[in-house]
Amino acid sequence: MNHEDWVRGELRELSISLGFRYTPPEEIESRLTRLRIGMKKKEIEALLVVQKMNFYYLSGTTQDGLLFVPIEGKPLLMIKRELERAKVESPLEDVVVLSSTRDLPSLINNQYGRFPQTLGLEMDIIPVRDYFRFQELFPNIKTMDASSILRDTRKIKSPFEIELMKVAGEIARKVYEKGKEILKEGMTEIEFGGLLEAAAKRYGHEGLLRVRSLNYEAYTWHVLSGPCGGIVSQSDSPMGGLGLSPAFPVGASLRMMKAHEPILVDFGISYHGYQSDETRMFSIGRMKQKFINAYNACLEIHDTVLEEVRPGADCEAIFIKTLRLSEKLGYKDSYLGPSGLQTRVIAHGIGLELNELPFLAQGQSYPLEGGMAFAVEPKIVFPGEGSVGLENTVVVTQNGYEILTPIDQSIFQVSRKQ
Amino acid sequence: MNHEDWVRGELRELSISLGFRYTPPEEIESRLTRLRIGMKKKEIEALLVVQKMNFYYLSGTTQDGLLFVPIEGKPLLMIKRELERAKVESPLEDVVVLSSTRDLPSLINNQYGRFPQTLGLEMDIIPVRDYFRFQELFPNIKTMDASSILRDTRKIKSPFEIELMKVAGEIARKVYEKGKEILKEGMTEIEFGGLLEAAAKRYGHEGLLRVRSLNYEAYTWHVLSGPCGGIVSQSDSPMGGLGLSPAFPVGASLRMMKAHEPILVDFGISYHGYQSDETRMFSIGRMKQKFINAYNACLEIHDTVLEEVRPGADCEAIFIKTLRLSEKLGYKDSYLGPSGLQTRVIAHGIGLELNELPFLAQGQSYPLEGGMAFAVEPKIVFPGEGSVGLENTVVVTQNGYEILTPIDQSIFQVSRKQ
Repeated sequence: MNHEDWVRGELRELSISLGFRYTPPEEIESRLTRLRIGMKKKEIEALLVVQKMNFYYLSGTTQDGLLFVPIEGKPLLMIKRELERAKVESPLEDVVVLSSTRDLPSLINNQYGRFPQTLGLEMDIIPVRDYFRFQELFPNIKTMDASSILRDTRKIKSPFEIELMKVAGEIARKVYEKGKEILKEGMTEIEFGGLLEAAAKRYGHEGLLRVRSLNYEAYTWHVLSGPCGGIVSQSDSPMGGLGLSPAFPVGASLRMMKAHEPILVDFGISYHGYQSDETRMFSIGRMKQKFINAYNACLEIHDTVLEEVRPGADCEAIFIKTLRLSEKLGYKDSYLGPSGLQTRVIAHGIGLELNELPFLAQGQSYPLEGGMAFAVEPKIVFPGEGSVGLENTVVVTQNGYEILTPIDQSIFQVSRKQ
Repeated sequence: MNHEDWVRGELRELSISLGFRYTPPEEIESRLTRLRIGMKKKEIEALLVVQKMNFYYLSGTTQDGLLFVPIEGKPLLMIKRELERAKVESPLEDVVVLSSTRDLPSLINNQYGRFPQTLGLEMDIIPVRDYFRFQELFPNIKTMDASSILRDTRKIKSPFEIELMKVAGEIARKVYEKGKEILKEGMTEIEFGGLLEAAAKRYGHEGLLRVRSLNYEAYTWHVLSGPCGGIVSQSDSPMGGLGLSPAFPVGASLRMMKAHEPILVDFGISYHGYQSDETRMFSIGRMKQKFINAYNACLEIHDTVLEEVRPGADCEAIFIKTLRLSEKLGYKDSYLGPSGLQTRVIAHGIGLELNELPFLAQGQSYPLEGGMAFAVEPKIVFPGEGSVGLENTVVVTQNGYEILTPIDQSIFQVSRKQ
């Protein structure tokens, strides 16, 4: 059997039998329609989509290649490797081989009949060298930054996307339940994190989390016990943890977890690229009262955020409201980070990446819209002692919200060993 | 206790007690010396280092920030978050806070006394938008691509770096040994991969692998059984595997592994950012003879590569030699990929990233040098059936090579369940 037949036959069947879901044509169509409204507004005649998650969003595949999207007419999916898999995965009709980037102009010309006058590029992320290369290949075309158009299109999730995020949330629920069986006194943070991750993968988690950034790296094993919960690191988040070395100074460490201290587990899940993000507390024996009180404060802040969530609510206003509440509850200097290092974000948009729109944060004054999904994560940090927090992924509905991470909100307490 | 004292005191002690190793000042000094030879040659007066692994290489920290390296005088480490941790982690003397990118010009002027005339940037990877921002901030400075200088400096590993890679190799050895206890009939690929990863983390693996690319993502759980071993995907490698979805169509899948089929485990390890890369074969019950024969061919190709490895040997010539040998051994059409999709690379440089120099590959005609490290990975692929392979990470020594991955090269065969 030749390769093409094998990929279209056996490989496709195997994939589907193991749960692969391909993006439906009408889903891509509706994404393109929304995207093109943004293109029109910015007067961009065509896009050249490079970055993997935008590429997946608009084509349904993550095989290596480039995607040309004209404002009218069919998109052209150009694949370096592997062509036949891309054809199976993508509902786009025009899929061609891209042997070399040199061929771009002729492929686009063949498809579109001419060169567009303006070409949108993802300037938030594509490397300078690639940009120069595109300029060389299209010397008379005006290049424009199309990052925000793609970002705006992706911020509203479709029912298809929400369904995938719900599966991620359901995997998360199972992982936290399993955590009660896994957690034992004497374990290190990383051992616990690794076993949670192994469980998550068995349930269908893809392993990799994604964030849109050159230097920021997402990871699943964010297990912070006792004093490690009070450690700030490179990212703009309430706490980063210790990690394993200066090369990866975040997340779980080799520290042995102790009884009665807070063990914060912030554990993202990815299913078909769609992520859920969630945090729950574990403890070996009863957590000290100070942390229980702080966790209850997080629950209250969390609920207060959700009460405000509906189309039209202002993102910054919700954040500011939580600032006031945290102060009223007595956590002014420990809310969202150690004093002096507090972040100004209570929720981050989520989908294919962990830093999508919207941000419920300082300076982010814009309205929530139906279909926006975000992770709301009130956290309280006591430097040198530990931190507590709760996080759920939610989607904005017509009248309010729906929680996509149906995980028990109690503290996951396990017994001390005898 | 204030934050600064706590980070310099307790946090530092905790880190060291858990195995953190900080890059010694003389190590950074020697890297800077070699880097500056390259800068001089290209007439670059100063570098602005952005990308995390170059940043770590030259500063010893991965906290969020920018590094200014003038051709003469002290580098300036500018930190956004978290400043005190960066001061503990980096041996550089001049470490300042970077509140906003706007402050760059004044910070550099303060340190250097003026603006450099030419500024090197990592144009292979920094986003266009950042590039424009730097141009705005330094309107009269000529920017140049410094990617190759950094790449060339990093390709020669110091004894300090090799020592860290050896620890990674030793973690790998333990993981494969543990694999014999973990692997059971009835497991899925991803279950096996997840448990191997959990074991690796317990032994000190950082979890994350790194590759220098916008779209290519590295991962540890490359467990391919039977037909999944014959599946090609997005990356330029002999086989990609099935993965869990079109969003992550590589590596381990939910397929249940079967007796007697080849189970290829290509499993990278990271220790203090330094990586080892290794592949071994597992089987449940005895692997079919066809695959055992092919594996023996991989062993022979592997040994033939190593016989050639010494300073001065030509990288492309070694690759070509393996092509001939694979043909002689009867694997012309299955060596390094399925027929028509074969890769032209037998080894890739490795260190902080998985795609460093050198490449023992077609078109890569340059000599090996002492201190170069690479992963050599002969693989043979039978589409629809499975693939086999062997991979070790080695470093070029004065007279030959040293293997950094001391893992048993036999097939890891476990018994079928009763």
